[in-house]
Amino acid sequence: MSTHASAPSRESVTALLGMLAYGELVAFDRIAADARLAPDLQRRATLSAMAAAEINNFHRLVSRITELGGDPDAVMEPFVAAIDTFHDSTKPRDWLESLVKVYVGDAIADDFFREIAALLEPADRDLVLEVLHNDANAEFAVAEINAAIAADRTITGRLALWARRLVGEALSQAQRVAAEHDAITTIVLEGTGDLTKVGELIKRIMQAHSERMTAVGLNN
Amino acid sequence: MSTHASAPSRESVTALLGMLAYGELVAFDRIAADARLAPDLQRRATLSAMAAAEINNFHRLVSRITELGGDPDAVMEPFVAAIDTFHDSTKPRDWLESLVKVYVGDAIADDFFREIAALLEPADRDLVLEVLHNDANAEFAVAEINAAIAADRTITGRLALWARRLVGEALSQAQRVAAEHDAITTIVLEGTGDLTKVGELIKRIMQAHSERMTAVGLNN
Repeated sequence: MSTHASAPSRESVTALLGMLAYGELVAFDRIAADARLAPDLQRRATLSAMAAAEINNFHRLVSRITELGGDPDAVMEPFVAAIDTFHDSTKPRDWLESLVKVYVGDAIADDFFREIAALLEPADRDLVLEVLHNDANAEFAVAEINAAIAADRTITGRLALWARRLVGEALSQAQRVAAEHDAITTIVLEGTGDLTKVGELIKRIMQAHSERMTAVGLNN
Repeated sequence: MSTHASAPSRESVTALLGMLAYGELVAFDRIAADARLAPDLQRRATLSAMAAAEINNFHRLVSRITELGGDPDAVMEPFVAAIDTFHDSTKPRDWLESLVKVYVGDAIADDFFREIAALLEPADRDLVLEVLHNDANAEFAVAEINAAIAADRTITGRLALWARRLVGEALSQAQRVAAEHDAITTIVLEGTGDLTKVGELIKRIMQAHSERMTAVGLNN
């Protein structure tokens, strides 16, 4: 990946981990609630298990924040509004919407954190890479979405629109975080070297998203 | 414990495991939702982690049901109404009520399953004993409740009333299960030997509950 312009400050790293940690805590909460939308108990349990996995990651991130001398509540707090707003504005109305959200959301989050991880020192880099989502989540979501589309092609338009809304809301909250939190912007800027590279990072993430949507038949 | 009158039938055992499994799935869902009532992010994470633990237990129970030739959805289904009704009628209104529910509910469920486990064959007995709740849950709940009572004695009456309501609703749903599901009644009857022993089992569980309420200052 890119060479480090400089090692990120402890403050930037704890802020980044705090953002991740609060993201995991809320993902737990929202996916747990979305599991109720499942058409049967087995599928409900599958989504519930995905939610539960976020909590293990949350604890690992909080341990590292504490190790770095950060106060977990204090470092998470600045990201509460943006992350809550994202979820409040993207509540799935049914099972398929909840799966598209898991699929789109996990993948974009993972792509972002994989890029960011490359900018960190080894201990934090490894931690961030380890809390990425399980491929099994995406496989389950894709299989369900594919089966639903095969059974009824008319849902494609609605789900494609939903996926675009998810990305739009995610980008708008990401911009809010970037504008409000210098610590996060700094880590990306210092890591990538300049603003052009930040643009390229976003472009790569959006390109990968677009390819995934095509693969699942939702890029109409 | 008691000597076996006879080994419980496979049908009775899968029904019991199905009841336990659905109980875990719903406990996950409800505790995950109750975590939002927490006064800060750390406490919210603690309750979220308790919820997540239920899902691991759920998976172990479902594996065993499948191993015994049962269909997990089918064996859980008969208990959906009773368990959902219990939770729908006992939604905590605040953080302390959610902790009292965890404390009272976990303990009574564990006492019941410890007694029932003694009536099962070794493989099922061990599984049922292993999915009992972590003592740390109770310790956390008791510490929070004690601290809240120390800060404001006037909440004792409300929480004691709440605990009584929880037990009342639990008993009324347990009676419904006993009336509707011969498989569960049979396992208890065959295991304990006669109806008097069932009465004694309930009495022991209620006695232990009462002692716990006294210990936490809620038996007024």
